[in-house]
Amino acid sequence: MIYITRREVFNAAHRVFREDWSDDKNLEFYGKCSNPNWHGHNYTLYVTIKGNIEPDTGYVADLKSVSTIIKERIIEKIDHKNINLEVNFMNGRIASTENIAVAIWEELKAPIRKLGAELHCIKLEETENNFVEYFGA
Amino acid sequence: MIYITRREVFNAAHRVFREDWSDDKNLEFYGKCSNPNWHGHNYTLYVTIKGNIEPDTGYVADLKSVSTIIKERIIEKIDHKNINLEVNFMNGRIASTENIAVAIWEELKAPIRKLGAELHCIKLEETENNFVEYFGA
Amino acid sequence: MIYITRREVFNAAHRVFREDWSDDKNLEFYGKCSNPNWHGHNYTLYVTIKGNIEPDTGYVADLKSVSTIIKERIIEKIDHKNINLEVNFMNGRIASTENIAVAIWEELKAPIRKLGAELHCIKLEETENNFVEYFGA
Amino acid sequence: MIYITRREVFNAAHRVFREDWSDDKNLEFYGKCSNPNWHGHNYTLYVTIKGNIEPDTGYVADLKSVSTIIKERIIEKIDHKNINLEVNFMNGRIASTENIAVAIWEELKAPIRKLGAELHCIKLEETENNFVEYFGA
Amino acid sequence: MIYITRREVFNAAHRVFREDWSDDKNLEFYGKCSNPNWHGHNYTLYVTIKGNIEPDTGYVADLKSVSTIIKERIIEKIDHKNINLEVNFMNGRIASTENIAVAIWEELKAPIRKLGAELHCIKLEETENNFVEYFGA
Amino acid sequence: MIYITRREVFNAAHRVFREDWSDDKNLEFYGKCSNPNWHGHNYTLYVTIKGNIEPDTGYVADLKSVSTIIKERIIEKIDHKNINLEVNFMNGRIASTENIAVAIWEELKAPIRKLGAELHCIKLEETENNFVEYFGA
Repeated sequence: MIYITRREVFNAAHRVFREDWSDDKNLEFYGKCSNPNWHGHNYTLYVTIKGNIEPDTGYVADLKSVSTIIKERIIEKIDHKNINLEVNFMNGRIASTENIAVAIWEELKAPIRKLGAELHCIKLEETENNFVEYFGA
Repeated sequence: MIYITRREVFNAAHRVFREDWSDDKNLEFYGKCSNPNWHGHNYTLYVTIKGNIEPDTGYVADLKSVSTIIKERIIEKIDHKNINLEVNFMNGRIASTENIAVAIWEELKAPIRKLGAELHCIKLEETENNFVEYFGA
Repeated sequence: MIYITRREVFNAAHRVFREDWSDDKNLEFYGKCSNPNWHGHNYTLYVTIKGNIEPDTGYVADLKSVSTIIKERIIEKIDHKNINLEVNFMNGRIASTENIAVAIWEELKAPIRKLGAELHCIKLEETENNFVEYFGA
Repeated sequence: MIYITRREVFNAAHRVFREDWSDDKNLEFYGKCSNPNWHGHNYTLYVTIKGNIEPDTGYVADLKSVSTIIKERIIEKIDHKNINLEVNFMNGRIASTENIAVAIWEELKAPIRKLGAELHCIKLEETENNFVEYFGA
Repeated sequence: MIYITRREVFNAAHRVFREDWSDDKNLEFYGKCSNPNWHGHNYTLYVTIKGNIEPDTGYVADLKSVSTIIKERIIEKIDHKNINLEVNFMNGRIASTENIAVAIWEELKAPIRKLGAELHCIKLEETENNFVEYFGA
Repeated sequence: MIYITRREVFNAAHRVFREDWSDDKNLEFYGKCSNPNWHGHNYTLYVTIKGNIEPDTGYVADLKSVSTIIKERIIEKIDHKNINLEVNFMNGRIASTENIAVAIWEELKAPIRKLGAELHCIKLEETENNFVEYFGA
């Protein structure tokens, strides 16, 4: 068993807030992250998959295919977008880093399995000081 | 003459567009950077000042004072904000990295001079792949 | 279960040595790390906590509170200090990176638990080439 | 139990290909990574070992000794070399990042154990976007 | 006048040597960089252009166009290639970082000018410890 | 004319203070940087030299020789040392980053010239947020 990781980056706007709370209550709980006019980040996404090395090829899986899956399923939908308003896999979810990581896991789990490998970890960096890691439920 | 640089970071939403152009024309010219629903970045700001080393102190200027000026004049106004809607020093300017760097220069030039040093360069990184440097008109 | 990490930095002086050994014996075993006149580092500290995402908030824990705990319990006591002479939670311990990481774990475990989360890992980087990870006893 | 990691870097040329396939078949499967004229990378290697902290020394193991082992067993053999043609521990293996990581594990496992510690993980970064982690069979 | 920079990366094999010197003489002068079996690097290229901010657009030049020029003129020709054998703009030049930077300058100067901006600097990083900057003859 | 840069790192303890001031006055002016028990940093040093490319070799100067000079003149004297007490070229100077950069310039100027190149810039990073650049008097 070996683990390989592909890094991708995207830039997006978001707001962390609950729709059923007032702006004041959101600001009190979430602070400046709930600015109603949005703010944004350069997110860095690390997708780790695990599997056995194919003796015929020396690969667990073709990283070009992994990269293509990440780009089609995630980057094209979220890069230069508003995470709250425009990203279908975030519908109905609070746009916290935790929830974005879980949603990305759910989007990638099945297509990575079709490659013959297993999704192991989604690591999502929001800033140089904060990141989240999710290994599945 | 010696140059000292202070790094600060901020996160903000923006949209690069002209108000007198249609969304379509903006998208054609600016691409995904003009998404009407905004996107955002982790900006990294480098403020370089120059001056002589004070023999009495070994300092060009007290970097804590430099940092305080940057925080009061720039970071508190732009961090976790929408650059187009909420940042007074960007009023009437297209929110390109170039224009943000020039506006930051204009905000910092006078207060840095009051410290007894001279503003030399504003370097603003929008992503790991793009940055701007401005040395004054 | 999801893992979130907060990064903090501090600068400190230290000396790796045993008080019951001569300077020569310390230099022979610890090399230049036991310089009696001290040396120092920019340490980078990663504090990882784990827990379930609160469906009401989208958060495992409020990272601002995590950051406040780290600053009050660790950074204010160790930043710009001499780890051997001035840091109470290092009393009686050899100032190796391993021991600093374990001591930070012990300082943070209880207050992180009070936030409703669980401390998972202390990662402490001494230089770009050396780091330690501790997951508890 | 605590984990300590040493980072080392090396630069090398390689080609990912199967000798029993034609250049065309290799290019079709491996893409530009199978360029018959070679290409190369700045590899970054992280060697993580685990063990108990020796109460007498505050160390799991002397990182200088770990670094010496890595340099003698790996870096001197692979730095500024052609991985396919000149690195004896890669004989008969396809030069994928996965296979290089496994081979480095096999080279380092015994000598690290002689230090009184246990090899835990080989992490090998090929580019800023791709890396592999191996924890043993 | 403002300066904007675009970063691109490429991976390539090379050998620093003189054809009219023996392998031994090359090894004596260039050291391990002249390994006849090649070695390689992840090169990082920073292309800095200068110009005035167009008041109509807020841009010096469209960075997407700058990126396209760099990709067509440089990256497609050098990425995953052997710099000595396969890169036409390096024909007849010793493959030192200095010479690669100058050659990239010569390839980019005219097409950048056609964009209405001026090439200012080619910065080429060979490793984390070595880089070259060229500002034209 | 082309510019080449070599990066080196060192770890050291220091205290920014004036001997003729009381500890209180030093703390008032220099803040926590004047802690009488020292603190320390991982300093990153960039030495930039300029010169013409030798057509015979493709080099401005042999970077191995540049690295050897930096190691002998600077790193061996300052790494794992107390800058105030143990570094001869800092005798009688306040240990500010500015003054360390100027002192390194003075140590390196002549030996770099002997290599046939010219020292252009000393850049010294004290932390990820602060650095100094010196280009000579």
